[in-house]
Amino acid sequence: MGADRKPRIGIIGTGAIGGFYGVMLARAGFDVHFLLRSEFSAVVEQGLRVNSAQHGVLSLKPVQAYASAEEMPPCDWLLVGAKTTNNAQLAPAIIQAAAPGAKVLLLQNGLDVEDALRAELPDTLHLLGGLCFICVHRAGPGQIEHQALGAVNLGYHSGPASADPALSQALVEEGAALFRAAGLDSQAMNNLHQARWQKLVWNVPYNGLSVLLKASTTPLMADPASRELIQDLMQEVLLGAAACGHVIPEAYAQQLFRSTEHMPDYWPSMYHDFLHQRPLELTAIYAAPLAAARAAGCELPKIQALYQSLCFIDRHHV
Amino acid sequence: MGADRKPRIGIIGTGAIGGFYGVMLARAGFDVHFLLRSEFSAVVEQGLRVNSAQHGVLSLKPVQAYASAEEMPPCDWLLVGAKTTNNAQLAPAIIQAAAPGAKVLLLQNGLDVEDALRAELPDTLHLLGGLCFICVHRAGPGQIEHQALGAVNLGYHSGPASADPALSQALVEEGAALFRAAGLDSQAMNNLHQARWQKLVWNVPYNGLSVLLKASTTPLMADPASRELIQDLMQEVLLGAAACGHVIPEAYAQQLFRSTEHMPDYWPSMYHDFLHQRPLELTAIYAAPLAAARAAGCELPKIQALYQSLCFIDRHHV
Repeated sequence: MGADRKPRIGIIGTGAIGGFYGVMLARAGFDVHFLLRSEFSAVVEQGLRVNSAQHGVLSLKPVQAYASAEEMPPCDWLLVGAKTTNNAQLAPAIIQAAAPGAKVLLLQNGLDVEDALRAELPDTLHLLGGLCFICVHRAGPGQIEHQALGAVNLGYHSGPASADPALSQALVEEGAALFRAAGLDSQAMNNLHQARWQKLVWNVPYNGLSVLLKASTTPLMADPASRELIQDLMQEVLLGAAACGHVIPEAYAQQLFRSTEHMPDYWPSMYHDFLHQRPLELTAIYAAPLAAARAAGCELPKIQALYQSLCFIDRHHV
Repeated sequence: MGADRKPRIGIIGTGAIGGFYGVMLARAGFDVHFLLRSEFSAVVEQGLRVNSAQHGVLSLKPVQAYASAEEMPPCDWLLVGAKTTNNAQLAPAIIQAAAPGAKVLLLQNGLDVEDALRAELPDTLHLLGGLCFICVHRAGPGQIEHQALGAVNLGYHSGPASADPALSQALVEEGAALFRAAGLDSQAMNNLHQARWQKLVWNVPYNGLSVLLKASTTPLMADPASRELIQDLMQEVLLGAAACGHVIPEAYAQQLFRSTEHMPDYWPSMYHDFLHQRPLELTAIYAAPLAAARAAGCELPKIQALYQSLCFIDRHHV
């Protein structure tokens, strides 16, 4: 890629996350290509539409949409917004759409979500992780509801720059610059693993309890029992993180708790998955942190009880 | 009461438990009087009917039914099958219906369920606790479905025989003899508190999870995640009991777990309460054991997470 050319961006999995960031980047002038599956025809006909509480209605039409990765041009950046439950299966499409030395960025929650994909990727591709601080969900084919926030924090996971901190840092900064050019907050993170644990402080309680208790953030934050349970679950995430060598300050959890109180009412993504009978992201958000903590000699019983209950719900859709 | 007269029995709260045992005792020839509230007229007209998988259809008609305790004759034994959530409010009716020196028997689950009632009773009344090993539920006004089992184990709680082990033991044996005369297994227990902890080994996992996961015993015993959670919760009950001085052998929990596998599919009573939007018995089955264990320095995190979730459900009916 020439230094004077804007990077070409491919979106693998154009759901709420991929669709939102793809539209924002395309509207900022980037050359963005969207890989779609079931929604391909609808998006070709109607385009993509983001209904944002913050930015108003943003539409993108025509969309550079593809039903197959083979038809995509080689992309410098590939943004993966698909569910973690599919990561390994996405490898062929990613490899197909990747320019030489491309940067693959997983915009996903959970711990160790890169591992299954990394095993399937050639060593020549960079793999990065991105944590999205955003309230967004898919309302219909190509239709995205954006309720609040939008920041993305990036970290380098693995690839040709693994042994070269200056290069990996430069790549992460390059990625963050893309999002900032689209008007979004974006920070480079030194330690992706620590950042993933930090994100779990929110995801572990709110995602799971929304499905377990069929409740969005407002009622969960209004009831004394669920408030206490949320705080207990947050404490266990801090314990697990610390056991794995990532000390997250107590104040960070308190701050997340308070900011959730002041957020507009929100149904976490796991509840949308439950509602649409999609598999829940239990491995990334629960099993992986539980296993990591246990390997470090630390039990997290309330998280485990929540995980066990969610496994039952995932199989029985109750 | 003369030694030659069969004791007169009053049933306070003729739901599934009170109705079943009252009908069994009446059919065995005891003089049984039933206090009813909303179902009074239906029971006067149609009688009481137990549809039992074990005993066939048992009906009782006419029923000695009362809408008010003031109309009841003085009873030697008062069997209380109402929900624990109402114990303190039942005191006036119990006092009204009690013969001098009457025995009040709480046929209820949970820990410390006698305490709220004891505070309202005169010292002259004996208070006993009974643990029912039975699968029974109310199918309609005066209609009781009996699926399996029926044993009642009794222990002395408090009253004029508190300081007289021989007398309290004799009273407990007298109570057990009533049930045995009605063809039911019944054992005297030396230690009511220990027996209540033992019963919790079943009630803590199955009652709560039936409401949390909207599942009866068969699916709960078929899924690996819920099986593991049930066993973990049972282990915590054993820990709590041991901290309170009641050592329950590990084999007891294993035996309960296995026997539940071979039980007919069963919806625990808490699920019926949930379904009919009655208050859940969370204090007796969860809060009291959690508080007792905590007072003994023992945390039970999975039981606590289950309790916190059930408190939310109890208030939101989700």
